[in-house]
Amino acid sequence: MSSETTAWWSTDLVRVEPGKIELSGYPVEQLIGDASFVDTIWLMLRGELPDRSSSRLLEAALTAGVDHGPQAPSIAAARMAATCGVGLNNAVATGANLLGDVHGGAGQQCMELLAEVVRRTRDGEDLDPVVADVVRRHRYVPGFGHRFHPRDPRRDPLLSLVESAVSEGVVDGHHLRAAQAVERALARGRSKPVPMNIDGATAVIYSELGFAPELGRGLFVLSRSVGVLAHAWEESRSGTRIKGPIPRSLLADYTGPEPRDVPHRD
Amino acid sequence: MSSETTAWWSTDLVRVEPGKIELSGYPVEQLIGDASFVDTIWLMLRGELPDRSSSRLLEAALTAGVDHGPQAPSIAAARMAATCGVGLNNAVATGANLLGDVHGGAGQQCMELLAEVVRRTRDGEDLDPVVADVVRRHRYVPGFGHRFHPRDPRRDPLLSLVESAVSEGVVDGHHLRAAQAVERALARGRSKPVPMNIDGATAVIYSELGFAPELGRGLFVLSRSVGVLAHAWEESRSGTRIKGPIPRSLLADYTGPEPRDVPHRD
Amino acid sequence: MSSETTAWWSTDLVRVEPGKIELSGYPVEQLIGDASFVDTIWLMLRGELPDRSSSRLLEAALTAGVDHGPQAPSIAAARMAATCGVGLNNAVATGANLLGDVHGGAGQQCMELLAEVVRRTRDGEDLDPVVADVVRRHRYVPGFGHRFHPRDPRRDPLLSLVESAVSEGVVDGHHLRAAQAVERALARGRSKPVPMNIDGATAVIYSELGFAPELGRGLFVLSRSVGVLAHAWEESRSGTRIKGPIPRSLLADYTGPEPRDVPHRD
Amino acid sequence: MSSETTAWWSTDLVRVEPGKIELSGYPVEQLIGDASFVDTIWLMLRGELPDRSSSRLLEAALTAGVDHGPQAPSIAAARMAATCGVGLNNAVATGANLLGDVHGGAGQQCMELLAEVVRRTRDGEDLDPVVADVVRRHRYVPGFGHRFHPRDPRRDPLLSLVESAVSEGVVDGHHLRAAQAVERALARGRSKPVPMNIDGATAVIYSELGFAPELGRGLFVLSRSVGVLAHAWEESRSGTRIKGPIPRSLLADYTGPEPRDVPHRD
Repeated sequence: MSSETTAWWSTDLVRVEPGKIELSGYPVEQLIGDASFVDTIWLMLRGELPDRSSSRLLEAALTAGVDHGPQAPSIAAARMAATCGVGLNNAVATGANLLGDVHGGAGQQCMELLAEVVRRTRDGEDLDPVVADVVRRHRYVPGFGHRFHPRDPRRDPLLSLVESAVSEGVVDGHHLRAAQAVERALARGRSKPVPMNIDGATAVIYSELGFAPELGRGLFVLSRSVGVLAHAWEESRSGTRIKGPIPRSLLADYTGPEPRDVPHRD
Repeated sequence: MSSETTAWWSTDLVRVEPGKIELSGYPVEQLIGDASFVDTIWLMLRGELPDRSSSRLLEAALTAGVDHGPQAPSIAAARMAATCGVGLNNAVATGANLLGDVHGGAGQQCMELLAEVVRRTRDGEDLDPVVADVVRRHRYVPGFGHRFHPRDPRRDPLLSLVESAVSEGVVDGHHLRAAQAVERALARGRSKPVPMNIDGATAVIYSELGFAPELGRGLFVLSRSVGVLAHAWEESRSGTRIKGPIPRSLLADYTGPEPRDVPHRD
Repeated sequence: MSSETTAWWSTDLVRVEPGKIELSGYPVEQLIGDASFVDTIWLMLRGELPDRSSSRLLEAALTAGVDHGPQAPSIAAARMAATCGVGLNNAVATGANLLGDVHGGAGQQCMELLAEVVRRTRDGEDLDPVVADVVRRHRYVPGFGHRFHPRDPRRDPLLSLVESAVSEGVVDGHHLRAAQAVERALARGRSKPVPMNIDGATAVIYSELGFAPELGRGLFVLSRSVGVLAHAWEESRSGTRIKGPIPRSLLADYTGPEPRDVPHRD
Repeated sequence: MSSETTAWWSTDLVRVEPGKIELSGYPVEQLIGDASFVDTIWLMLRGELPDRSSSRLLEAALTAGVDHGPQAPSIAAARMAATCGVGLNNAVATGANLLGDVHGGAGQQCMELLAEVVRRTRDGEDLDPVVADVVRRHRYVPGFGHRFHPRDPRRDPLLSLVESAVSEGVVDGHHLRAAQAVERALARGRSKPVPMNIDGATAVIYSELGFAPELGRGLFVLSRSVGVLAHAWEESRSGTRIKGPIPRSLLADYTGPEPRDVPHRD
């Protein structure tokens, strides 16, 4: 029976009644054992189960992003949290909380950019000038280039899976071609290319699979939460307490005013 | 080159060098396309890849726990967060942050209980008195009984997968038998049984697969983060701003002191 | 001795050496007992101690914003957190995390708007057309009007303190006059006025005192954290476990697909 | 009108009606300008306004704890958060979230310890054996000793304020005397004393003022949130993006398995 109060919390995602749990209409007991974890992620975000080929492509993207080491602030903050006497869930939350516009947003921004390219070429514009226009608007094009890796080792295996999926008719390849055109445009007239990075390659996959750009960040959060949890767990077993960012023997530099007395104030 | 500073952030989990990312020694480019997302979760938490049968069992447990509706405080808080002008990552973090000892800890507590039963029977004690002793120590035995479901619909399909895994020699079944003994003990002399719930059934799986009890909570966080993300995403598309817990037409009851003047204070 | 590592964490705010703590150069032992808590907030954010009159004005703004009841999502989420088996610090963090652009950002946006009006009139434009231009650009002018209060009871006492401060020469009143001009513009030709709300009145104070707009949100977070803590503490003593948004007797509406079987997928 | 739903969110703390906001019965417009921010903190946590002397003592404790530099994980995590593209509120939440049992819990634990000493001596036991018993139970007595400061510079000014308050009859001094007895017991037979630290000195104040031990952590969260905000704000103006824990030129050590091929798995 619907009331104003129960309607306030209405949802399309799950029906829960005594003895019954359905996710988008599917009984949970049918999903268990049949649907993979990645199928279920898709189901919860899209309302339908994916075909097996699409699910495998999503699986690869989620796998590729799980970790990039303890120098990422999300990972470092979660490791520090794990030494402060909070639960593992709080440590994971601390890491996820840091995956904001700058640290976790490049994939979403790249998806928006690819969507624009695909939309404009679909509307009749030529690919090269659209790409040139889009590239011109960015100082750093999100999803391309890496501060650390001359060529991100995750690029080639991910794009190779997308190419197979295109040739098998699983996805149509429009976003892949848009991303490759951006990559070519960025290489033109430079001594060093600016190849797609993990954010770009997963943006291609998520876009080809029909996810909204905002979910680019959402899916990255799920993926990186695995690394966040693993690092928090590793740190929690180390026995370190109240781990700061640098060894205890070091002292952060102080750059403020020299010592002074508190003045008399009326 | 190791220094005190670089050693402070040392990790067994991932090696990152220009052009190279290895997870527990495995090149990420080999994992992409070969390892499933769940394989990778296992690898990050255990340091080795699972066999395919163990991975499927973990997959079922992770799938079973993704969501139980918007009345869970973790889900409700994430939905409210999504209406407050923060990123999806902040909304997911808000949900994960609430999966504490009480809301997310029953699985971990059940794993500790099962570990005690298995250890003591392995050491020569008889199963029934050990179980009776363990049950007697709890007012509510974690992992058994459900406020809402007379019989949790996720119990049977999960335990059936464990039984298959035992018969195939994938796991040894000691924790399963311990949990079933607890269930029998709880049913004895009662009009209504107190069957295993999702926390109990997944505790059996995680324990059989050799995960530490603390990771029972960690794995639940990964699983439930899917539901948290899906609900936050659904809410963010609703257009609601600053969603409170009850409809705007209602006003929370006030139960404090009646109106009074601020007194003069010296 | 400065190194690349210690410089990475350099700060102007505090010098810590064995036996010594200085905040912006002031020995902490001189501050204790002399500086008020609000003085210290000011010192940490501005690098100097305020005069007593400025500090009292900031004090009033911080006091005014501490709480607006449990229907605010920040408060409700913190109360729910307090029932989930996490620390009070995690509950406060949950509340603060929700004070985003929409729930906690109106003050900052109002400060940016007032800064524009003051800057343009200082540059020679007339007040009324500048205000008309600024008002025209917003569907809802941040800091004005309240969904719930026809006239926010915090408006008058806060503005009256600003007016006293102007007449005593503590602040110059430019932002106050800008805000009053916006209020007049919003009242013109309407049956109901759209008076300044708490975000607007505190934006006037923070702006008059010279805080940057981003700190409008920061100061609100400090202020509202008091209410968040108080509500989390009240809830934690209630004994409720895993508090959802609506009473347990109610069930959220389900609006998704009807029950269906999981399909065969290749 | 009360209903099950509005009762679910009932509170003693605040009454909000159109045009009216009362905190524990006090009209907010009377509090603004009369009650200090610290008075209001007290009111929200205790339900009554403090006398001016008690409020000043609380003020000193809150002031003393605002910051201890960027090597505290709470501060470092908040600074890193501020470079990741999240709001200042999310950065503050990140810091508060880390003030758990280990990083923020010593004050609460010290208050529990002092409460036990006071209760047992009130019940007739002699002070010295009670203190000896309490000390014996701890490897590190919470609130005493400091890894970094031979003598915490905040100890003396805080205790001196408590002593004045005792001599003026503001507080009774039982918890102060308990803490001093612990300090004497810890010094006995050691070459170096183990003086009270900030957690101990503020625990004395909060206990003397009648706060519950759990609020020791809560008050510390409010106090340290000032430093967290100030550091997040300082970092956000630095222009650094995605700040990791150590300079970019350094690489965290890798201590896991050597490179290996992903094995064939059935």
